[in-house]
Amino acid sequence: MTLPNAQTIRHMVVFDLKHPRESAAARQFLEDGRRMLTSIPTVRNFGAYDQISAKNDYAYGFSMDFASQADYDAYNDHPAHMQFVRERWETEVTRFLEIDFRLPTDPKGEDQQ
Amino acid sequence: MTLPNAQTIRHMVVFDLKHPRESAAARQFLEDGRRMLTSIPTVRNFGAYDQISAKNDYAYGFSMDFASQADYDAYNDHPAHMQFVRERWETEVTRFLEIDFRLPTDPKGEDQQ
Repeated sequence: MTLPNAQTIRHMVVFDLKHPRESAAARQFLEDGRRMLTSIPTVRNFGAYDQISAKNDYAYGFSMDFASQADYDAYNDHPAHMQFVRERWETEVTRFLEIDFRLPTDPKGEDQQ
Repeated sequence: MTLPNAQTIRHMVVFDLKHPRESAAARQFLEDGRRMLTSIPTVRNFGAYDQISAKNDYAYGFSMDFASQADYDAYNDHPAHMQFVRERWETEVTRFLEIDFRLPTDPKGEDQQ
């Protein structure tokens, strides 16, 4: 889905893990991330992905949508997010890049199909 | 929307333009990109976005979905894509990073909500 309106934010992070690709530990991290982060009420359309472009070196990605900046803030401050960051992210992720997409103010920036 | 199945690929690129942010030339680039790339039949769910995370320096993003690697290849080889790259991307984009998401083989990596 394209983003429905100019308030919605798609938050993504691409990252590497200390675990080997395809390992059970890597798959468990993605699954635990999904479980813990989707427990936060403001998280919409969560996806845990393999990053497969050969043009960058990141191995995985998370994607989620927030209906507003307030919903995004509520996620950042939520105990489940803080627990995930402290217990898993900071101990298993070796590098990452965060990316946030929002529609331009000019609605022509978005395809309406 | 989360990706519907393990064949679908979400192709994204974050980038900077030589034009100032919020300028008419920047907005025109996003609009022309939308128009030219959505003319390619295999492009689904196209979005042209502002990149708003303060944790990276990219200003814009395109996102599109392909139903399969074959659809992705058809896009790469399509004359409209090659024209856009040659006439606009190579002359107006100053730096970029491509990212592709695909569901892990293990379907538990994806939230089914």
